[in-house]
Order: sequence, then C-alpha cells, then structure tokens
Amino acid sequence: MAFKSFREYLWFETEKRRDFVNITPQIEALIQKSGIQEGLCLVNAMHITASIFINDAEDGLLQDFDRWLEELAPHEPVTNYKHHLTGEINGDAHLKRTIMGREAVIAVTEGRLDLGPWEQIFYGEFDGRRRKRVMVKIIGG
Amino acid sequence: MAFKSFREYLWFETEKRRDFVNITPQIEALIQKSGIQEGLCLVNAMHITASIFINDAEDGLLQDFDRWLEELAPHEPVTNYKHHLTGEINGDAHLKRTIMGREAVIAVTEGRLDLGPWEQIFYGEFDGRRRKRVMVKIIGG
Amino acid sequence: MAFKSFREYLWFETEKRRDFVNITPQIEALIQKSGIQEGLCLVNAMHITASIFINDAEDGLLQDFDRWLEELAPHEPVTNYKHHLTGEINGDAHLKRTIMGREAVIAVTEGRLDLGPWEQIFYGEFDGRRRKRVMVKIIGG
Repeated sequence: MAFKSFREYLWFETEKRRDFVNITPQIEALIQKSGIQEGLCLVNAMHITASIFINDAEDGLLQDFDRWLEELAPHEPVTNYKHHLTGEINGDAHLKRTIMGREAVIAVTEGRLDLGPWEQIFYGEFDGRRRKRVMVKIIGG
Repeated sequence: MAFKSFREYLWFETEKRRDFVNITPQIEALIQKSGIQEGLCLVNAMHITASIFINDAEDGLLQDFDRWLEELAPHEPVTNYKHHLTGEINGDAHLKRTIMGREAVIAVTEGRLDLGPWEQIFYGEFDGRRRKRVMVKIIGG
Repeated sequence: MAFKSFREYLWFETEKRRDFVNITPQIEALIQKSGIQEGLCLVNAMHITASIFINDAEDGLLQDFDRWLEELAPHEPVTNYKHHLTGEINGDAHLKRTIMGREAVIAVTEGRLDLGPWEQIFYGEFDGRRRKRVMVKIIGG
C-alpha cells in the first residue's frame, strides 16, 4: 500500500457553556473523503477547554457525566483557581477536559471507522459560546 | 519501507464485575504475527464500560486503583445515575472507564513492543461477566 | 509518499517531587530532525509515575492542576496504599499520572507539530528526583 495522509478541521460553537455533541457521522464522512482504507484516525480538540472522547450516545449517561465532572472539578468558587488571576473564569473547564481526554485514536479498516457496537465519538465542550476547532488527521494506505 | 496494516481482536469475559488483566504478552505476540517492524500499535476497548491502560503489574497497586475508582465514581447509590432509567445499572462503569482511558497507543520498534521497564498493558473491566472485545490495530512498515 | 519511522528519547530528572515541564520546543525539534512531513507523533512517558499531557502554559493553571491532583489522589496518609507494602511510597503518583494521561498523539503536517493556538506539550512528574525517559516516536511520510 502507498502511504497517504489527510487533514481536515471541524468547527463548533455551542450555545451552552457545557455541551456534548456526537460527531461520529462527521468523522465517518471524512474517512470516506480521505480515501484511506487501512490506518489510524486521530481526532483531537485543538482548544484546551474542550475534549474528544468515546462513549455511549445515551442522554441520561451524558447528564451523569456532566453532574460528575462538576463534582470532581467544580466551577465554583471561582476564587479557588489561580488561573483566574489572568482574568479567565474557566479553570474548571481545563480540569474537566483533562478527565474526559484531549483525543481519540480510532482504527480505520476497509475504509470505515472501526468502532465497537456502542462506541460513539463525542466533542465535549466545557467553556462554550465561542468558535473552536477539532483536528481530524488520518494516516494510512 | 512499504506501509502495512494489521488488525486482530482479543476477547474477554471476566468472572468478577471488576477486574484487571495483564495483556502485554498477547499484544507482543500480535506484533510479531503482524510482521511490522516500525510503527504504532493501537489497543482499545471496544466496549464503553472497559478500559485499556498502562501501569505497573503490582497487585497492591491494582487494589489501590480499584478502591480509588470506587471513591471517585461509586456504584451506589444506583439511583444517582440517570443512565439507570434505561434499565442498566452500570453508570459507574462508564465513569471508571473514563478515568482509566479507552485506549493506549504504543510504539513498535524493531518488531517489538517499545515499552518502558515497568510499563505493562492492562485490560480494565468495570462491568464484567459478559463477553467483550479489544481491538488491536498495528500500522507501519 | 514513502513510509518512514523515527524514534528518540528525552530524559528528565526534576529537582522537585512533582513538576511540570513544557517540552513543546524539544518535540518540534525532533519532528524537524525526523524529516517526516505528514504523520503522527506519539509522545509517552516510559515511567508509570509520570505523564505526558497537553494544556495551557499558564503558571496559575499549572498550580491549579497540582492542587487538584493532590485532592483527587492525596499522598497522605501513606498507609492508605497497598502498593506501599512493597516499600514504595509513590502510590499517589501512579493515580495522578492516570488522571493526566500516559501519552499524547499529535498530528504532523508540512513537517511541523500541528497544534491549536494554546496547546503546549507537558511532561508531568509525580515522583521525581530520579532519571526518567520519554519516548518520541514519529511515523509518516
């Protein structure tokens, strides 16, 4: 096989401060556009208060994630974060994104996303209402 | 080098609800089977209540992980999880797997797993007693 | 493109038990040294009490991370860790590294690190004062 590479960005601007967006269909479409049959697909948030993760597309579970992240890395009191001395108030978003992860690496097989039956790829936003990018880099043959 | 790709699954069915299984020898064998000398090996749980992670093969530490995950994402009270309105009672397993991670990407060098001296690859099960798959995808030359 | 592969190690010995080191310039230099134009770069801690993660190079935030990790995985009481029956006292470091992550996979585009505007690559040390290695493996064309 000849080695090939493909890159494209996805853009997001969520209306809510925190949100989860299922981006599996968009990633699947980019893999087909790339023409790569066998390889690896890297999907990563390019902003450090957002996340890419893989889990179940079940609304109750997504609400559980949101409640749990707020327990582990609470937004309040905002005086708790030294980062806020810069004028930002998104310290918690940096921590939440760390729990959920920056990136997912996914197998590409026979020109398709090679996922388990319930695996869905999510964009996790923890400091929304601004435009942010996600990198999709696919390499293979 | 010519570009090559290899995929195989590992299957697990743990007797306990939560368990850790050292799968380093199985991954090493698959790398040799692939014939790939230089590249990257992706190992990921294909189920969203299980994990692949790399840490120390020390029994006390694995017990520490288990105790700690139960503190950060407790199984009880099961009424705490909106996910359980679906009839599932594994909300905690989704959270625990998120802490431990879905995947590991490991270097392949001279036809071998290129790990540090204490790095061992583990399958982490958080909702066991059912058959689950792990993906091993190796790309390189 | 012809497929190529490159590996090199970085060595660290921090003076403090816990520390964060921005290694972005070193990774950028290795990508240029590799001659790889399009591909993926894996950076992983080879020791299981250290981490590679990507976040903001802002001192206040790094202090927030340190405080938060000590809350989620406290060093004391050391009697809390079964791992310490081996004579080690770094059980917390294994857990902290798990939160922050073992590895980052980063896109390489046109011979450069393909990062978002604030993404910086950090080495996270949680049990320092000893020499430790980081793997940099770059594959592509």
